[in-house]
Parts: sequence; C-alpha cells; structure tokens
Amino acid sequence: MTQHPSPSIKELLHPRNVAIFGASGDETKWGGRLLHYMSKHRIDGQIFPINPKGEKLLGIQSYPTLADCPERVDMAILLVPKSRALASVRDCVANGVACAVAITSGFAETGPEGLALEQQLVREARAGGMRLIGPNCMGLLNTHHNLAATTAVTMAYVDKLPTGPIGMASQSGALMGAMLARGVDTGAGFSTMVTLGNQADIDQNDVFQYLIDDPLTEVIALYIEAVRGSERFVELLARARAAGKPVLIVKSGRTAAGERAVMSHTASLAGAWASFEAVCRAHGAYLFDNVFDLLAGAQLLARGHAMRAPGVAVFSGSGGGGALFVDSLDEIGLPLPALSEQTKRGLEELLPPSHRELPIDFGVINHGAEPDPRFGNAVGTAMGRVLEDEAIGAGIVFLTTQPNMDMIAESTIRVGEHCGKPLLFVHGASTVGDIARQVLREKGYGYVESPNDAVGVLAALWRRQETLAPTGAPASSFDLPKDLGTGYLAEPNARRLLAAAGIPVTPWREAASVAQAVEAAAALQSAVAIKAVSPTLIHKSDVGAVKLNIAGEAAVRRACEEIAAAVEQAGHELTGYLVTTMLRPDAELIVGLQRDPEFGPMVMVGAGGVLVELMKDVQLRPAPLSPEQAATMLDGLKCGPLLDGWRGGKPVDRARLIDILVRVGQLAVQMPGLTELDINPLFIADGEPVAADARAVLA
Amino acid sequence: MTQHPSPSIKELLHPRNVAIFGASGDETKWGGRLLHYMSKHRIDGQIFPINPKGEKLLGIQSYPTLADCPERVDMAILLVPKSRALASVRDCVANGVACAVAITSGFAETGPEGLALEQQLVREARAGGMRLIGPNCMGLLNTHHNLAATTAVTMAYVDKLPTGPIGMASQSGALMGAMLARGVDTGAGFSTMVTLGNQADIDQNDVFQYLIDDPLTEVIALYIEAVRGSERFVELLARARAAGKPVLIVKSGRTAAGERAVMSHTASLAGAWASFEAVCRAHGAYLFDNVFDLLAGAQLLARGHAMRAPGVAVFSGSGGGGALFVDSLDEIGLPLPALSEQTKRGLEELLPPSHRELPIDFGVINHGAEPDPRFGNAVGTAMGRVLEDEAIGAGIVFLTTQPNMDMIAESTIRVGEHCGKPLLFVHGASTVGDIARQVLREKGYGYVESPNDAVGVLAALWRRQETLAPTGAPASSFDLPKDLGTGYLAEPNARRLLAAAGIPVTPWREAASVAQAVEAAAALQSAVAIKAVSPTLIHKSDVGAVKLNIAGEAAVRRACEEIAAAVEQAGHELTGYLVTTMLRPDAELIVGLQRDPEFGPMVMVGAGGVLVELMKDVQLRPAPLSPEQAATMLDGLKCGPLLDGWRGGKPVDRARLIDILVRVGQLAVQMPGLTELDINPLFIADGEPVAADARAVLA
Repeated sequence: MTQHPSPSIKELLHPRNVAIFGASGDETKWGGRLLHYMSKHRIDGQIFPINPKGEKLLGIQSYPTLADCPERVDMAILLVPKSRALASVRDCVANGVACAVAITSGFAETGPEGLALEQQLVREARAGGMRLIGPNCMGLLNTHHNLAATTAVTMAYVDKLPTGPIGMASQSGALMGAMLARGVDTGAGFSTMVTLGNQADIDQNDVFQYLIDDPLTEVIALYIEAVRGSERFVELLARARAAGKPVLIVKSGRTAAGERAVMSHTASLAGAWASFEAVCRAHGAYLFDNVFDLLAGAQLLARGHAMRAPGVAVFSGSGGGGALFVDSLDEIGLPLPALSEQTKRGLEELLPPSHRELPIDFGVINHGAEPDPRFGNAVGTAMGRVLEDEAIGAGIVFLTTQPNMDMIAESTIRVGEHCGKPLLFVHGASTVGDIARQVLREKGYGYVESPNDAVGVLAALWRRQETLAPTGAPASSFDLPKDLGTGYLAEPNARRLLAAAGIPVTPWREAASVAQAVEAAAALQSAVAIKAVSPTLIHKSDVGAVKLNIAGEAAVRRACEEIAAAVEQAGHELTGYLVTTMLRPDAELIVGLQRDPEFGPMVMVGAGGVLVELMKDVQLRPAPLSPEQAATMLDGLKCGPLLDGWRGGKPVDRARLIDILVRVGQLAVQMPGLTELDINPLFIADGEPVAADARAVLA
Repeated sequence: MTQHPSPSIKELLHPRNVAIFGASGDETKWGGRLLHYMSKHRIDGQIFPINPKGEKLLGIQSYPTLADCPERVDMAILLVPKSRALASVRDCVANGVACAVAITSGFAETGPEGLALEQQLVREARAGGMRLIGPNCMGLLNTHHNLAATTAVTMAYVDKLPTGPIGMASQSGALMGAMLARGVDTGAGFSTMVTLGNQADIDQNDVFQYLIDDPLTEVIALYIEAVRGSERFVELLARARAAGKPVLIVKSGRTAAGERAVMSHTASLAGAWASFEAVCRAHGAYLFDNVFDLLAGAQLLARGHAMRAPGVAVFSGSGGGGALFVDSLDEIGLPLPALSEQTKRGLEELLPPSHRELPIDFGVINHGAEPDPRFGNAVGTAMGRVLEDEAIGAGIVFLTTQPNMDMIAESTIRVGEHCGKPLLFVHGASTVGDIARQVLREKGYGYVESPNDAVGVLAALWRRQETLAPTGAPASSFDLPKDLGTGYLAEPNARRLLAAAGIPVTPWREAASVAQAVEAAAALQSAVAIKAVSPTLIHKSDVGAVKLNIAGEAAVRRACEEIAAAVEQAGHELTGYLVTTMLRPDAELIVGLQRDPEFGPMVMVGAGGVLVELMKDVQLRPAPLSPEQAATMLDGLKCGPLLDGWRGGKPVDRARLIDILVRVGQLAVQMPGLTELDINPLFIADGEPVAADARAVLA
C-alpha cells in the first residue's frame, strides 16, 4: 500500500466543494441540520448532499454517490450511521476527496471493536491520500471561508458567521459548541474552530500548528483532555510564543477524579496534570479552569494586552459590589493596589476627595469635568487615568442596573481599546441591561456576567504572568563519578553525585567500621547523625537505622551498634555507616527530579518536613531550567515566608537556592539515566541551603 | 418631647396610600421613574405625588403638601433634594404619616454635617411617631402588597411584580437592584425587599425580624456591610433557625482590603469577618461570596432542601463539561462520589454499562427505557435515581447547546422539585438555549449561567452543612482560684486556672529558688523545661528566659542562673522558676479565647508551631460551645491529618480535645473578666492533648 503525499491542513480547511454523506431533508435530524447550516452560511463553492434516492433535500439537489456529483468534491462530511462509514470513505477515496470530516460516532470511544473499525477507516483514507477529522466529532468552522461544517446548533441562530481572531481546536464538540454560542452573544470573533473527536488521523497538534501559521488567527484556544504527541505539543507552545500568539488552554483531568471522568467518556487517556501545567507555564501558555473563562480571556488577549502587574482596578456603580470584588480578588492573591499621588491628582476634578481610591465608584463621577480626549467622557477619563497607574495591571468594570448603561459600556470599550491593559466588563444588570450587552456585542468587546468568572479570568491572566520567565538553561558539563552503578543508589553515592554537580551537602564521612565512625565523628567536630549504609535499605528511618544528635565516642559506638542490630533485624545487609554533621535547620525543603512519561524531566521544589503532605506546596518545571524559571518556582511556594527569614532568622541565600535548582535540571540533561533524584530534606540552616539526605535511581 | 408608640414594621410595609415627595413628570429623573413604577405596579390604595405646582404628573394629580391630599397618607417616599428633606419630614409628621422612605442622599455618608442633619430627621420623625427607612437608600418592594416603592429600574421592565418566598434586606441599593433584575430573569420570587441606606432609624435587624415573622417569606437573604446591633442579630439568627427559615448572607469586608473599601463608601463601620463568620456558622446561616450566588442559593433553598452529603451528582450532555465540573468540585473539597451498586442497577435500562457512573452523560440515555413515573421521562428517571443515592447531597445539570433543551429543563424541574435535594441548573447554552431559560423562568426554578457560580453556590451550601451543630453548652461551675489577681497572669497562675477548669497541663512545680528548682526537677523524674516566673515578662523565650531539655542537678542550676541573668538584663523582676516536664509532641495546636467587641467570647483552635502563620489554619466559634460544635472545629482544621496519627503516630484522643475546647468556652461564661486566654502550645503527645504553656489576662 503506497502512501500518497498529504495535503496541508490549510488546504483541507479551505475546500471548494463539499459533499455531505447522510444529509437529510428533515431538520430534526443531524443530517438535516447540518445541510441547513451549510447552505445558510456557505457562499463559495457547492454543496452536494449524498443520498441514495437522489432527490432534492431542503431544495438542494442530492446525488446517490460522489461519482454522480457534477463537480469534483474536496471535503466530505460523514453523518452516516457507523455501519455505512467505511463505504463512504471508500467512495471518497475513489473520487479523490482530500478530507473527510467524520461526525459519525461509535468508534474507538465504544471499545475494541469500534477501535478496529476506526483504524480501518484511517488506513484506507491514508492509503488513498485522504485525511480524516474525527470520527465522533462535531465538525468544524472556517469563518473566513464561510465554511460551517458543524452540527453546532448556534448556526441556526446566526445570520453571519462570527469572524475574528480566535482560533480553536477542541477535544470536546459540545464545549466548542458552548463557546461558539457564548461567543456569538458576547461579540467574540473566531477564525477557525475544529472539533477533533477521536483524533484517529488529524490530531490537535495538527490544528494547533495550522492556527499558529494562520495569519487570520491571533489567539489560540485549546480544550484538551489528553495531549497526543507531547514533544510536538511543547514545540508548538514554544513556536506560538515566538510568533507572539497567546495560547489559552483548558484541560480537564486536573484532579484524579476529573482524570477518571475524562477517561470514562472519551477514547483518550488523560495525562498527569502537574507536568502538563509545568510545561504550559514554562512556555507562557494561559491556563483556565473552564471554557467560558477561557473565551473571555481570549477576547481580552486578542487586543494584545497582557496583565503585567497584579493590581486590579475595580470600577463599579455600586459601592457594595466594588467591595465584594476587592474581597474576592484579595482572596486569590490579587490585593487591592494603592493609587499613586499622581493618579489621585489626575482624579481631582473627577471625583470627590473621599472617592479618589479603589474601588472607583463611577456613581459619583463629576460629569462636568474636562474629559481626556483619549478616553471620551468623564467616566472614561476616570477609568483611563486609573488604568495608567503603574500599580494597575488590569481593570474590572462592574455594571449593576442603572440609567445610561450604554454609556458605561461605550466608555469601557474606548478605554479598553486604548489603555493597553486588559479591562474586563462584568455585566451584572441582567436583561434590564440588554442595551449595554448590545453595545459590547456589536463592538466585539466581550463581557462576563458573573463576578466569579471575572475573578477566574484575571487569576488565569496573572498566574501566567507570575510564572513567565525565559526558558533555556546555562550549559554545563559536570565531571560526574563513573562508579555509581545502577539501580537505587545508597546515600554515599547519591551524595557524591550531588557534590559532583556542585550541590552542597552536609559535611560527611563514610565509615566501614565502628572505629572509623568514631574517627569520622571526631573529625567532623560537631554532634553528628549516623545512618546505616546499605545497598538495599531505602527507608532507613523506618527501621531505626538513623541516629541523630550523637556526641562523644561512647555515644557514637552505641549508635553504631544499635544501627547494626536494627539493620540485621530488618533483614538487610550493612556495608558501613554514614556520619554527618548535625545541623539545626530553620526550614526544610524537598528538591527532586522526576521524569514524566509524556513531558520528560521535571525539577521539583516543595515545602519539606510536616508541611509536605499538609500543604501540598510543590512547584514543578521542565528541565533544563533557567535561573529565572527557578526564581518563579521559589516565588510560587506558599512556604516562602520560611525562606525569607522566619521569626528573625537569616533569610535564605536565594541565589544559591536558585543555583541548586538549575543544577538539578542540568544534571537531568547530562545524565539521561538518572530517572529519579530526591534531596529530602534540603536544610536551610543559617541561610544556607544544604542537602542533608539524598536518594537517586540510575537506569 | 414624648415618644409616640411606634407602628410595627409590618404595618409600615403595608401602607394604603402613598405620597411621593419630589415626584416628577420627567421619566429621565428618579422622581419620574419612581412615580412611573409605583403607578404601574400599585393596584391598591392611592398615590399622591407631592409637587409645589399641584399639576398632573404622568397623568396623576399632584398636591403641593400632604394637607392638600384628599385622603390620609400612610407612607411617604422622599426623593427631594437634601435641602428639602427636613421640611418634608415635618409635613409628614404634621399629617400623621407612619413611615417615610428617604431615598434622598447626602447625609451621614458624606460627613459630620450630613450626620447632624440625619439625626435631626430621625429625632423629629420619632417625636412625631413616624419611622424612617434610609436615608440614602433605594426604597423597598412588597410584592404581595403590590408596593413598588423603589427606584430599581427593573420595575420598568416587568409587568407583574415577581412574588415569591425570598425576603431580602440589603445594605446596598444597587446590589438589591442587581439581584432583583437577575431574579426576574431566572424566575425568582420575592416577598419583601428593603434597602436600608444609612439605617438612621429602621435598621437591618428590624427588617430581619419582620421577615422571620412574615408568613409569606420562606427564605431570608441579607446583604450586610456592617452589623448594627450584634446581640439582637445573633438572637434573630437563632430565631430564624428555630422557625425553619434559612438565612442567606453576603457580607463585604471579608478581607482587610474589602473592609476598607466598605468603610470608604458607606456610613457604616464594617466589623471583623472572623467572628461574624463564626457566629453565622454556629447559627446555621449560609454564607456566600457574592450576591448572585446568594440569589441562586435562595432559589434552591426555597424548596426546603438542604445539602446533607458532600457528593455532587453532575449531569451533563457534554462529557468534557462534566469532567471539568468534577475537577472544580474536587478542588473545593467536594470529591466525586461513587454510586452504590443499587443505584447502578437502577440505571441498567437507562445507560450503557460504561456510563453508569458520575458524571452522568445524558447524551447517551436510552430514551426507550421505562420511565419512573415520579421523574417523568428517561432523562428525569436517570437523574432521579442517581439523586436518590445516599452518597449524593446535591446535583448539577449542565446544559450546553443541543436539541430538546426544553426537555432537559423540564426534567430538571420535575426531579428538582421531587428529589428532596438541591439540584442546580447550569445554563451554558447562551441565547441559543433561550427555550430552556424560558421554561425555568416560568416555573420559577432558577438557574446560573456560569460553572464557577454553580461551584460557589454548592460550596456555600456544603460549608454550612459541615459546620452545622447544635448550640448550647453543658453547664459548668468550676471551682476557680480566687487569688489570681488581675491583669496579665504569670504562667503559674494561668496554669492553676486551666487546672481548675479541668484542662490538662504538663506536670509542673513552682520553685522560689534554685534549690527548689533542683528539687522540683528531681520530683518530676524526667528532663525538664525551666522558665522564668515574672509578673511583667510576657515573651519569655525572646529574652532567653526559657531553657529546654534540662537533665541533672548541674544542668538545672546552670539553667536557673542563666535565666536569672537574662531576666535581669531584660529589666524584669524574677519571682521564681517554673519547672515542667519536657514532652516530645507529635503535633502542636493553639487554643485560645478572645472577646470580640461585637459578638462576645470566641473559642479558637488552630495549627501551632510553624504552621500558625503559614497556613492561617484557625477555627473560631462563639462561646459557650457544644461538644458537637467543637467537633466541627476540629473537622475544619487543615492540619487535621496531624491529629489523626501522622506517619504512624498515635491518633489524638479526640474526645479529650473536644472536652478541652468546651471547657475553654465554659470558662469564658463563668469568668466574664477573663478577657484573653492563650494555650500555646497545646501539645499532642502520645495522643494526649496537654497545655505546655499558657497566658491569660483578667480584667
């Protein structure tokens, strides 16, 4: 079987003539709905319904097979029952169709039998030089090409396709449909929307790449259940960033329960969230919790304005509404910013003295004040001047029911377009405020209707900014010991590995005998910890093979004897003792290296000791790691106050800590066989980070 | 000046004839709008616009003064400028008006001058037997009495007042307006809504009490900026609970920033959130983060269904949408529940084997299955059977765009009315789904449009259930020492107080001299801690006046000498030594007693040690405390795993810990002069809670 050269995704998404297998004249059926939507919106090329009887359907001539159609067909949409899918694909291949969009379901998502049939479809399609989207999808939309090849019911309600800058690839048809419907309401514009279904042939990365290259797409929105092709996905994230196109992502399966829920309903396997999140953050993608927040975020970001400071300016006609926003923003780590004296001076004419601070109450604005021509009227001028304040990274306009709601909407649009910062309109005026909704929709500005959504959108915008840092790590070539062996490394070898990579470890000696241990303790000139060295014993503390705070020869001897007895009782072999200086740490961290099966090596840092499990305070980034990325990891730790000089203690040497994280990342690159590394604990003692225990696994 | 007997709030809210001071014929003015709304909606009694010219306004005869009106007036609405407010009040008093609703602003909220004028209004009104609502409010609504005495612009959009069971008292006019507008959209029904403005006379408690007594009000919704009259407020919470009327509250000022924002915009002073929250939880009130969540919660609770289990059943036509809900719910502590085998059997006819688990995908329901007559069709039957599962406390129906949206809405309504559990409809289908919206509105069912709102509403419902416990503590009469003195108590006295209240303290001795300390240490038969006893030294550790882990006579002597030197150097008087057994705690808690200026004594328990400041893991409840309430405090601690036997340790004696909290509460009642008590740390050692240090302040 020879493989024909594939047409590009771009060619596939710009067909001239489109055939519909399973078209119907009955609009209560999907085949009738789709025919209706296609014929309503498509003004270029021709539509050929394929129907055995060859009659007219909704006034359009149908044909029994493709061969009967008067013109060549570029794209076929399959709405036939599963049992007829293969025959349709064969008809397509026989007639040189470039792309089939299989909306038909009942394939891999139903089990092994469906999967086999799906694979046969793909095999035959590819052999015939045809690409396949789906099956089990909801079709696609290419608004700039007037192509509404989707069963999304919104198509029945709009007269004109909502063209615009948002490109979308979704692993859920229903959620794409929901975003499309919401987008039509709020004035969002879309370039291309593709639902991927089972991704039997064309996958999300193919469409992601197309959207990066598509000049009509300015922001890219992805709904993901599982990444297929993680390496390429990461490359595409980097490419989109280089192209200056924001990538906005919702991924289900953030929690174990959500992951199971995804698996139970699709043919794909959801990947672990933590690594996915780390990779997205490292590459500057925006992560949202749900699709409506993502849509609102896409509308904001399509204006090219990122949120560069955490201060949110709340503008509200309701004092209480403004105060509630202040509470909610503060709770997610966006505290109320103070306006500069300069900004306050700029508000003198506009607001009474008691009101020249956030949240701004536009109910008391002096409409007689001289407006700034950039910002229109007095309301706009107040908003614009506040947004110009350096402390402000974004704004929220909260509309409750009031007169002149269109004026508030128009001021918001004007300021939002010109101020260079995201300004989100929160429409809280229900149907009574339809006039404002209409203004916002017509100008394509967008809005949300829930204060919770506004908080969610800004949280996503700021979290991205907070973790944004250059990628790429300094090159390194550590002179690593060659005699470490493989498998689980006993602590002395793990310590030698760390030391070779320039990571500080507590002063230590290895002792083959009790006598050597006594000598080692004396040489270290401090109280010591003594631990068993054993090639097989991993959890030393659990069996009593670690003794702390040992001072004096007698105590050292006793500790060694007790350890020997404990190791023997636990059935392990004792090869010696590790003697190391006791430190009194001010704080404990965990630093580690993991290899994600999808996304490769990840550097981890987290709160140690009792905090590990209580706070789940962990930051993860893909290795290698730039110093700037390592810094964002430390910034993201909730236990940060412990590092900054807790209760009068000395603050940690931050540069040194960053350096350790970078070195762990470098080690991951230089030593592909290092499958696991755990520095637990990494002590912070007198401000200095130092590894107090380590374990490693070498492949 | 004699004070006339006041009419009841009920009488005030049921006026026959209403006068409008400041009425206008111009509907772009508030005085014209209100006249229009009043005349549009009011079918009983008469409306008398008061206007100097005595002309017809919007077709209604006006009169220059009340005396000119042809009938007696019961209620007057004041929309006049501030400068004419006093004259209007005098006219009202002279003509026996029972209640004036002062929408006019410019009083206490603007400063001392406004406050003085406001006080004069109230004085003259009360002296004349008249009550005042406002000033600076947005009026009120009594739907069952056809009274639309409000400037809320929604009144222009509705033909019929939205009658129903939700009674509301709001410290924000704009937010009440927003809830009213949203409620009209979603089919909510209101009994009485009152905006309180500056509460110069009638305050929120007055209206709260009325709503409890009002037979037409079934749930009570309060928007609060500051509680005025906290003791009465607490009594009313208890009374509402006894009456079986859920109380739903949004309070701004949850955070320090929000508190400032409230103060800057109203005449009231926002109270501290923590005590307020504790009191509300103790009395079973529902706390929401914003007013739209509150409204949706009120609609759910009006059906009389509380959420009694944390399991949320998600029903969605979109697999991806269902999975995202599972993620979001899990993240707020509502993990995905497992359905029982019995429930799964009940789904056999309705769903394929792979789909008989949550989230339920109603896209694959077998519509041919035999429906349960209680639940209507097959979709309803699947929902109803799942909701009957014991693990399920509430449900979410998530609608994305699809055919037959009205059917989904109708099934939800039927099941939601009959299943006895809150079932929240999340309308994610935008304008395309107006048919579902219409069904939900007409049946008065309600819906939210944002997944975030749904999560917020259920979080509030479950948090309330989680902290719900009987109030009232066991009586006690501790035989307390009489010689404790006043002011700050040195540790020995604080320990004697605890011991007298039956709270365990670590074994200890007081020593007047070094020799006695040596004796004490010997008597305790363990390593000891030695601390300075000083009537003036509060922070002993900070000056080096605490020595830990002391063993042996020599060490005790040295420790005492060092402590004496340290206390002297710090300029304090040393009166002795406290010698106490050293324990190795598995965990540390803080237990304390505070007296809130508004809400009285509060018992506090929190994570101790390094966790205090990092995790802010604290639970507060008003004293006295029932054992059940104390149990909910422990359940609410994030450090709970530390108590349950951390890493193989012995679990804490929970009953003993609960008993300690109850005793602290009893102490607060028995000893009103005990203004502060801190047990820090309360050690958990070998499963036993025991106070290791204490301080107290006696008035």
